[in-house]
Amino acid sequence: MISERTQKALAGSSAIRAMFVEGREMAEKFGAGNVYDFSLGNPATPAPEALGEAIKALVDESAAMTDGSRELHGYMENAGYREVRAAVAENLNRRFGTVFGFENIIMTVGAAGGLNAIFQAILDPGDEVVVFAPFFGEYREYAANFGAHIVAVQPDYDTFEPDLSDFKLKITGKTKALIVNTPNNPTGVIYKPATMRKIAGILEDKQREFSHDIYLISDEPYRELVYDGNIEDFLTKYYKNTIVGYSFSKSLSMPGERIGYVVVPDEASDAKELIQGIGIANRTLGFVNAPSLIQKAAARCLEEKTDIAFYDENRRVLYEGLTELGFTCIRPEGAFYLWVKSPVRDEEDFVSEGKKRHILMVKGSAFGCPGFVRIAYCVSHETVRNSLPAFAKLAEHYALCRS
Amino acid sequence: MISERTQKALAGSSAIRAMFVEGREMAEKFGAGNVYDFSLGNPATPAPEALGEAIKALVDESAAMTDGSRELHGYMENAGYREVRAAVAENLNRRFGTVFGFENIIMTVGAAGGLNAIFQAILDPGDEVVVFAPFFGEYREYAANFGAHIVAVQPDYDTFEPDLSDFKLKITGKTKALIVNTPNNPTGVIYKPATMRKIAGILEDKQREFSHDIYLISDEPYRELVYDGNIEDFLTKYYKNTIVGYSFSKSLSMPGERIGYVVVPDEASDAKELIQGIGIANRTLGFVNAPSLIQKAAARCLEEKTDIAFYDENRRVLYEGLTELGFTCIRPEGAFYLWVKSPVRDEEDFVSEGKKRHILMVKGSAFGCPGFVRIAYCVSHETVRNSLPAFAKLAEHYALCRS
Repeated sequence: MISERTQKALAGSSAIRAMFVEGREMAEKFGAGNVYDFSLGNPATPAPEALGEAIKALVDESAAMTDGSRELHGYMENAGYREVRAAVAENLNRRFGTVFGFENIIMTVGAAGGLNAIFQAILDPGDEVVVFAPFFGEYREYAANFGAHIVAVQPDYDTFEPDLSDFKLKITGKTKALIVNTPNNPTGVIYKPATMRKIAGILEDKQREFSHDIYLISDEPYRELVYDGNIEDFLTKYYKNTIVGYSFSKSLSMPGERIGYVVVPDEASDAKELIQGIGIANRTLGFVNAPSLIQKAAARCLEEKTDIAFYDENRRVLYEGLTELGFTCIRPEGAFYLWVKSPVRDEEDFVSEGKKRHILMVKGSAFGCPGFVRIAYCVSHETVRNSLPAFAKLAEHYALCRS
Repeated sequence: MISERTQKALAGSSAIRAMFVEGREMAEKFGAGNVYDFSLGNPATPAPEALGEAIKALVDESAAMTDGSRELHGYMENAGYREVRAAVAENLNRRFGTVFGFENIIMTVGAAGGLNAIFQAILDPGDEVVVFAPFFGEYREYAANFGAHIVAVQPDYDTFEPDLSDFKLKITGKTKALIVNTPNNPTGVIYKPATMRKIAGILEDKQREFSHDIYLISDEPYRELVYDGNIEDFLTKYYKNTIVGYSFSKSLSMPGERIGYVVVPDEASDAKELIQGIGIANRTLGFVNAPSLIQKAAARCLEEKTDIAFYDENRRVLYEGLTELGFTCIRPEGAFYLWVKSPVRDEEDFVSEGKKRHILMVKGSAFGCPGFVRIAYCVSHETVRNSLPAFAKLAEHYALCRS
């Protein structure tokens, strides 16, 4: 008597999440040091010490106040504490030259909760949401939650930026939104400002053509994870109808805490109704509000940064190591993923041969882009270094070599 | 360009939540001491000291461990930490004689998140969920999230237990579930064991009649809030197909933290698929998992209790005070709500006259039961005591008197 949707979900459950369990079971069987689990985007760098300090200070301050725990652990507006939202707004304004007030910020249960709340606010059944392949596979399920569906645009296979001529073709009268995710999961590519301007131009043309708004939803959990002198970008400057979904999961290494926010700029169409609607969605979808203590703790850690150099080192070792072995990799500029071309057409074979050598990678078809695999290098340096001999055996299996 | 659903929601937003903002604005205008805000179920008793201690200890223990913050703030299985789920199972087993293992427990983003995850796992579009009026109004929106809808059973207006002959009529071939909420929001009534046995008997008959499973969903955030020597009940013993949704919001006074759990007993139909399906729903609905630190903190506070005597005092003063003034009140046996008959047919008039005297109450129609109002007495003793002269004026307005 389970629902049809759940029956289908059980049949084809998340490739990534299944690997989470599989990786742990393999680690128990073979020893953690002998399994190279690159399957999940679970940050390897610790949360900043300041996070723990902020949490403890909040508890102590609360204990010293009459009614303190009611404030710290109690209900607030569905959109979050006003002072937390104000702190987020100020932080963004200082970094990106924006002019947000607390009203523009809605605290959410991570970026996943934020995207669902945005979707409820804008999507009607039958609507289409355009995404650039490869893309985070669960966008599909989030859209389905509202009877809408995903339309994928193919990539430029050299740069892994979107193929803009395909993009133009994929926008229809039913298109309500485009999701942009840069730095990108799963490729690590950062879309260039010139590309963003072209995307904005196309959206503006299409808004006119179809006489309705098309929102650009910027899903940016990896905003701060940029390498090689790339600059953190904030997409509201390219296009008026931009809504931002953010998560502290990666930047503060706390994906389990489910804390993020949505930004709706005043210049977005129906901004006021959107802001209210997203707050209502927080409630009616069952989130109610972002977790209270962690809201306040995150607000005190807005200046904290994760250890980018740590990931950069993994990036360098893996990219160079795999390229040296003859694999074709897209050079990542941000996030903590390496996107590798499968040496054989069917990347499931590649994933499966990897697993035999204790290397866990996720198949590209989970991201709407078969023929590739994703390696999440948010793991220890040891795991990266020790995986190279296993990758060498994998290269040997496929008889790859540089010269 | 907001969605039709959101347009409707903006037009008829939650009466309770609107009052949350209104109450705060009135408090700013007239002084908090001069406003009697009985609108929201935001616990007045502080969270137990042990909660803050557990949180701080978890942070300290994590800091002392290699990789500690990854464990404390990181991803885990969508269903939650196994040791947290095991602790919940053991606690229930000891208190209620059940035999749950960790597999039977799924940690959720509060009871609201839990109900939505259960609904996704069992509901198909067009399905019906039976509820006993008066009921928590947002059940309606949770069902609508999955294309299903609520069918309300009328109460016995003397006892505010359900009218069981109406219940029999309301179960159809489309009925997938019944929600039972005892101790009840908004009446404070506890359904007697004899009533629960009758409800179970009716469900069993109807399962046979329609040849499909009907789940009883026990929504029990108020499980521990019982007075007058009433015993905490746990409904899985009455009916095999019972799924429990629980929240720590009221029992540990932390509604802002969004932490609860779902229990699926092995004897429920398709238990294994249900458990998996609810875990998947946690992910695909955007919850991903219950907040990590608070999961662990709650697991350390399972023996903690809120200050029942505090609410009992409010209950006594309000029930006696209002009855004395001539109001007709249902005597509450649990939760922290008083259900009062409107002295005039249109309870919105009653709510509005109350507001003029700075008393905030919620109209019964928000709970599918017009002609009554809900008073949430999870407020300070002062608010309760000081409200009585205002209630006296309200009684005078309606020319009520005892003799």
